[in-house]
Amino acid sequence: MEQTNLSMRIARAPEGLPRREDFVLVEEPMPVPGEGEVLFRAIYMSLDPSMRRKLPGPEGAPVPLGGTQSVGDLMIAGVPPPARGYMGGFVGQVVESRHSGFAQGDLVQGGCWWQHYQAVPGDCLVKLPLETKASEALGLLGQHGFVAWCGMRNIGKAKPGETVVVSAAGGAIGMIAGQLAKADGARVIGIASGENSRFVVEELGFDACIDRHAEDVAQRLDRLCPDGIDVYFDNVGGDVMLAAYDRMADFGRIVVCGMASEYNAPELPFGASLRPVLRKRLRIEGFVVYDHYEDQFEQFQQELRALSASGRMKYRIEVIDGFENAPDALARLLEGRNKGKMIVQLGPDPTG
Amino acid sequence: MEQTNLSMRIARAPEGLPRREDFVLVEEPMPVPGEGEVLFRAIYMSLDPSMRRKLPGPEGAPVPLGGTQSVGDLMIAGVPPPARGYMGGFVGQVVESRHSGFAQGDLVQGGCWWQHYQAVPGDCLVKLPLETKASEALGLLGQHGFVAWCGMRNIGKAKPGETVVVSAAGGAIGMIAGQLAKADGARVIGIASGENSRFVVEELGFDACIDRHAEDVAQRLDRLCPDGIDVYFDNVGGDVMLAAYDRMADFGRIVVCGMASEYNAPELPFGASLRPVLRKRLRIEGFVVYDHYEDQFEQFQQELRALSASGRMKYRIEVIDGFENAPDALARLLEGRNKGKMIVQLGPDPTG
Repeated sequence: MEQTNLSMRIARAPEGLPRREDFVLVEEPMPVPGEGEVLFRAIYMSLDPSMRRKLPGPEGAPVPLGGTQSVGDLMIAGVPPPARGYMGGFVGQVVESRHSGFAQGDLVQGGCWWQHYQAVPGDCLVKLPLETKASEALGLLGQHGFVAWCGMRNIGKAKPGETVVVSAAGGAIGMIAGQLAKADGARVIGIASGENSRFVVEELGFDACIDRHAEDVAQRLDRLCPDGIDVYFDNVGGDVMLAAYDRMADFGRIVVCGMASEYNAPELPFGASLRPVLRKRLRIEGFVVYDHYEDQFEQFQQELRALSASGRMKYRIEVIDGFENAPDALARLLEGRNKGKMIVQLGPDPTG
Repeated sequence: MEQTNLSMRIARAPEGLPRREDFVLVEEPMPVPGEGEVLFRAIYMSLDPSMRRKLPGPEGAPVPLGGTQSVGDLMIAGVPPPARGYMGGFVGQVVESRHSGFAQGDLVQGGCWWQHYQAVPGDCLVKLPLETKASEALGLLGQHGFVAWCGMRNIGKAKPGETVVVSAAGGAIGMIAGQLAKADGARVIGIASGENSRFVVEELGFDACIDRHAEDVAQRLDRLCPDGIDVYFDNVGGDVMLAAYDRMADFGRIVVCGMASEYNAPELPFGASLRPVLRKRLRIEGFVVYDHYEDQFEQFQQELRALSASGRMKYRIEVIDGFENAPDALARLLEGRNKGKMIVQLGPDPTG
């Protein structure tokens, strides 16, 4: 067994989009699991737009409201223990267990630090079923799938014949949110960038998709949604959100799921009046997926497995090679230039 | 019977707050009821902040999005036929009926024009029960009570121990919304102006009330709501709304009921970021009471009658004398300087 561990620490506060130079990969001592802990080797890490919010602000200290890490700290993925494993950002394989629930070789989900090896309390890990594909555990059947499902099932509630618009439609969450609405009988319009906008129509079966780099989003929404938007599932905020907001139908629901386009900037005022909320009886509602694991995670997995088995739920994964390439990939993700759910591969995948 | 009718028409587009000179009282021919119609004499008219939105814009034409009346048109209260009577702005007494459901002397609710006599389809009138006090039919047991009830029951859903903030707390809707939340076991903080802020505490039993003219609303909210606001029932919009928005607790609900402070101005951007909607899992939801009459009006009336009978629902009415004084009263209402629910008396009240 190796005696050192590779860790990714924050070298400086990024200016704008994160870059490779904002991080430093350091060799550190191999963690030693204490009583009740499990040491695992990371196979994949989930890469998420919300990671931008973990990074320190201009003075190197955590950004107020959201940021948690300072210069010199380990970079973070998912939620630290004592959060349960499905909130963690890694899938890995157990190297050494001092917890009765785990044995060497088990496939697990959990952890939160950008490290090749992590020792975490066994109570904070989740053992994945034998048939799991490691690369799917972080997306389709994991947190991103669950985020899409919670937003659609608890807030969006698309009905047959309604018009649903999904931003970042080619992203980890948008792909699933749109297909859930299709399964419910809605007409689904995506908003994505470049090649992704073809992908969601041709491969995922969205009714249409706007290329936000090549087309005027507002004009296209006018054409595609002549009766307004019943459900807007928002992953990006900013101008795209405003264009959808101006076109909501009466009784429309805006699912505030993410604001990827705004994470890189200070909080800016919402650039529209709230009067349409009254006039059109709109609902604008935000949610955080961690609130729903206890109650709804099982129901979500059942539904997604069934949809997936029947061919009505497809998914695309972009694999990034190693921590060194993660910062640039994160920047690409924040710009919407990812190709599906991004995961970082850190070691061999025994479930291939 | 008189042969002429007094009608209030729009003389010009108001600049800022409406004034007496923006209207003209004209003698017009007495309406003659056609087959199926009922002619009634108006006793009271409801005066509402939303009337400001009916007035024409700077060019004399209806304001886009909201305004319905042009210069020269009759001024409007409530909703025109074929809306049902409880959506109308008047309580009156039948003078002549050509509809089998009504007889001379019946007390009715309905109508929508600022006129002493109106002929309307009988199917669009509601006959009020004999024991009704005419002055209550437009408020506590009418549309304003129903608005407060719909907002609290369908969106706010205050739970025991929660902190509820109500703006325009001394107004027609705020008075009832706050007392409903009290009945539900919540702590209720009002925001009102001057004497109204004492009234809602001393007479209606609110736990506290901020005088928005004499006190710093934001600072007082910080003191009165140290754990944040669970339900904000908004009747005013603008700066007061922003102060509450900044202080919402996780999972808070903002009931967008009215925006009295904004009706007098063009639509302005909401001056805050929507990121807290995500971070705090907020819900911002608007509603229009007309959507709920069919389903919930009866349930509302039962509940309000019971609360009123048990002394847990009090109500204050300010009576304005005649159409001539209505424009200035409307301006006072838009500034929050009313003393309870404003109604305009147009003739003798037989239920006095």
